[in-house]
Amino acid sequence: MSQALRQHLEKITTFTDSEFDYILSHFTTKKLKKHQFLIQEGDLVPNDHFVLKGLLKSTHTDNNGKQHILGFAMEDWWISDYQAHFNQTNATLYVDCLEDTEFLCLSLYNREKLCAELHKMEHCFRVKTSAGFVALQRRILTLLNSTAKERYEQFLQQYPTLTQRLPKTLIAAYLGVSRETLSRLYTA
Amino acid sequence: MSQALRQHLEKITTFTDSEFDYILSHFTTKKLKKHQFLIQEGDLVPNDHFVLKGLLKSTHTDNNGKQHILGFAMEDWWISDYQAHFNQTNATLYVDCLEDTEFLCLSLYNREKLCAELHKMEHCFRVKTSAGFVALQRRILTLLNSTAKERYEQFLQQYPTLTQRLPKTLIAAYLGVSRETLSRLYTA
Repeated sequence: MSQALRQHLEKITTFTDSEFDYILSHFTTKKLKKHQFLIQEGDLVPNDHFVLKGLLKSTHTDNNGKQHILGFAMEDWWISDYQAHFNQTNATLYVDCLEDTEFLCLSLYNREKLCAELHKMEHCFRVKTSAGFVALQRRILTLLNSTAKERYEQFLQQYPTLTQRLPKTLIAAYLGVSRETLSRLYTA
Repeated sequence: MSQALRQHLEKITTFTDSEFDYILSHFTTKKLKKHQFLIQEGDLVPNDHFVLKGLLKSTHTDNNGKQHILGFAMEDWWISDYQAHFNQTNATLYVDCLEDTEFLCLSLYNREKLCAELHKMEHCFRVKTSAGFVALQRRILTLLNSTAKERYEQFLQQYPTLTQRLPKTLIAAYLGVSRETLSRLYTA
């Protein structure tokens, strides 16, 4: 399973076997069942999580108890409450499993250690974070775009696999459109 | 003026005078007047821009001609169309000056060169990008939050200086609330 992490990192730069073994020694493994929480509001969030298998959603519950979907993560993606993780504050998000899920966990301490020791690792994380930054800007533009149709089409195009694995209710909540509107778009 | 860049980078790590001179030699300077465009839709975006003086907004115009505000930038912030910049594609955003503005410009080529040559520079950009990533997640949560009041209060708290320099119409557009709603909140 750890080969998935190596392949993930080597999309950016290559590592020798001993370098990769050293990197991997800084990760721990974790398994959760469907419906279990990885992070709950108020938790400290020591780790970032690389998904080996499964599917999760990260959500924010507003003062009226309404749940908003910040994002999803599946195989080959990272997920955490990054505000809480990087600033070492309490989580404002919930992250829960939509399927049985397996992770590799990297603590903030170990991330900084690896980045300081291996320039290549710092490079990997900079490139990944830049790509994540761009994806979030696209998400903001999607939220600002006026039509449900455009949002849905962008989602389909960006995440074809996710679309098949997610209940329509969750896709609608992620896009900020009603379940009925989404159903009309599905059959259009 | 270049001391502003040095102070900005040295919030993260320190550089010797000769290191900083070397870094600075990879930047070019640029000045624009109020109302001028830094980036227009369709442009190639070779540069990222560190703001020395002034204020800008980045916007997206949807298919109905409606303008949505992705973000603002003032002194000590970076601004570009990052999707276009990192992927070397055409801009989908407009970036224009709300005040007379001065920048230091860094090309993608020079960013990658500096990051490859100086581990400390790669570290700086990773840390800055991670902070930017967290800020964008907060913005998404703000957009998903249901009440205009919450959005406005978060904006005030996060960007007190910006609030004083921006017309209320632009703050309302950024928050996705009507000008009338914002005026009621101002006087509340």
